[in-house]
Amino acid sequence: MKRVYLFINLFMVCMFFVSVSYSKTSDLKALPSWEEGESKQAIISFVNTVTYKPSPDYVNPEDRIAVFDNDGTLWAEQPLYSQLLFAIERIYVLAAQNPQWKTAQPFAKILSGDVKGALSHSEASVTDIVMAANTGMSDQVYTAIVQEWISRAKHPVTQMLFSQMAYQPMIELIGYLHQHDFKVFIVSGGGSQFIRAFSEKVYGIPVERVIGSTMKRTYENIDGKNVITRQPEMEFYNNNENKVIAINSYIGKRPIAAFGNSYGDLPMLEYIKSGSGETLSMIIHHTDDKREWAYDKKSKIGHLNKGLDQATEKGWHVVDMKTDWKTVF
Amino acid sequence: MKRVYLFINLFMVCMFFVSVSYSKTSDLKALPSWEEGESKQAIISFVNTVTYKPSPDYVNPEDRIAVFDNDGTLWAEQPLYSQLLFAIERIYVLAAQNPQWKTAQPFAKILSGDVKGALSHSEASVTDIVMAANTGMSDQVYTAIVQEWISRAKHPVTQMLFSQMAYQPMIELIGYLHQHDFKVFIVSGGGSQFIRAFSEKVYGIPVERVIGSTMKRTYENIDGKNVITRQPEMEFYNNNENKVIAINSYIGKRPIAAFGNSYGDLPMLEYIKSGSGETLSMIIHHTDDKREWAYDKKSKIGHLNKGLDQATEKGWHVVDMKTDWKTVF
Repeated sequence: MKRVYLFINLFMVCMFFVSVSYSKTSDLKALPSWEEGESKQAIISFVNTVTYKPSPDYVNPEDRIAVFDNDGTLWAEQPLYSQLLFAIERIYVLAAQNPQWKTAQPFAKILSGDVKGALSHSEASVTDIVMAANTGMSDQVYTAIVQEWISRAKHPVTQMLFSQMAYQPMIELIGYLHQHDFKVFIVSGGGSQFIRAFSEKVYGIPVERVIGSTMKRTYENIDGKNVITRQPEMEFYNNNENKVIAINSYIGKRPIAAFGNSYGDLPMLEYIKSGSGETLSMIIHHTDDKREWAYDKKSKIGHLNKGLDQATEKGWHVVDMKTDWKTVF
Repeated sequence: MKRVYLFINLFMVCMFFVSVSYSKTSDLKALPSWEEGESKQAIISFVNTVTYKPSPDYVNPEDRIAVFDNDGTLWAEQPLYSQLLFAIERIYVLAAQNPQWKTAQPFAKILSGDVKGALSHSEASVTDIVMAANTGMSDQVYTAIVQEWISRAKHPVTQMLFSQMAYQPMIELIGYLHQHDFKVFIVSGGGSQFIRAFSEKVYGIPVERVIGSTMKRTYENIDGKNVITRQPEMEFYNNNENKVIAINSYIGKRPIAAFGNSYGDLPMLEYIKSGSGETLSMIIHHTDDKREWAYDKKSKIGHLNKGLDQATEKGWHVVDMKTDWKTVF
């Protein structure tokens, strides 16, 4: 008889641990790459408030929406945006099929190694490079190209894989929000499909929660196959006020938390703060020239001026990468 | 000692039932409003195949994406699309603020009760009515207006609430797919924000999974408030090939199941079928003039011609509402 009890108990103990393992992990060990301090406290306190049922600022899970900028917020953006570095590599790869590039600018300058000269050749230079590298193929082929690139391409300064240039504290933050039943979206000026090629793997964010800039596309039957082709024309540039419009188009609700790092994120940060109830708008300030880069008001990439000047008045929390983060990558 | 065992066992039995109650409900009672037959069998067989791990056509949960048209697929669309009936009511409400409508067409005809005449007055008539009713206010005000309307407005023929005109078998189907970890999206020619005002309540589909047509919008600070205003200009008409483009923009993956009922859904149904592995494309055929309406090739609303002619060749399954559905509403 005792044996039967023992067996039943063992079985039940297993069942108990199975059910416990589904429950949320404790907050005690949350955000290990964040230093104990105001920034970490601001995040945890915000999450506690909106998830604590008796709180007057409790938010139902379906309304727990957080939005993150990508370049400079989730991964590094210096000395150039990663998608631009990807595009420059593509120009080399595609040069054989485009012999006219030997003399046509900005391509000739890139092929001669003068990237700076190529980018500043004319106002349209960046657009020309981006279009040549990111369009003219099917969506499936494009995704495969980006996935191959991110699996092995290395950052020109750090020699790290681009996927390793994602910020560890931000990956932990996304995970922490997911644990608390937040829906986490990327809202980036970068291309939707570019980011989608690695968003799940690098950030744990599914493709349908990536909102980026889009190219015009056509859908046609080519040689018996139904193909979506990326056209060399911008459809929607997802920056500044457009980030708010895109949030409205894709999500249809005002998020309660937003994270950005440059001028193009400010309308989004302001939009979130104008909601009722508890909200969190955070600016990632690049202050660490040893472990990453230090830049703000004078930088063309990741330009941040008003964001710092108006932060207190607007209620935006500024994260100091140097003092707030134990680890960067 | 025995008492301790008994106590532990009782506790563990409770835990066991807690954990079991989280597991999926059996398929035996699935889709109760569907008659036993080919259509129900096609759905269940498809879901079994893509969710059964040892199957060569097993699909990971993150790729289990299903898309549904709205008008005529999830709810009734006769004698006019619900959003058009909503718009006509709005013209009456707004007439006091727009005295010029007493003589300006198509508004004067609507106000005199001649809806048919108003809609056919000129090619732009429908657009004029839709713009007047659906734009010119903030997104928040618009949502409140639609929610008030759907809470009490009645269908002109059935005198039922519009929310009651959703098809019971399709609501069950959405729930069945959710139970099997599908991500279910609406992909409709109707307005995104119109459908979002009730998608959660009526269909159990969260707002961020509604993909519809969009109006141009502005984001401005008006009198110290950050406001998104709906402008009287179409931004994106989500029909035909555009439904495939929108799926690409919003979801970024090819869905494995699609449900539609008219010509505007055919590119989407075809796109899903052109994917590899097991896929399901279904056409809801309106054949029941007793419980709903019977229409297809000759109808302007919900026009379905090629969809029926090419169904077998294309591998689309046609649902016969009259014989396949036990209950309609």
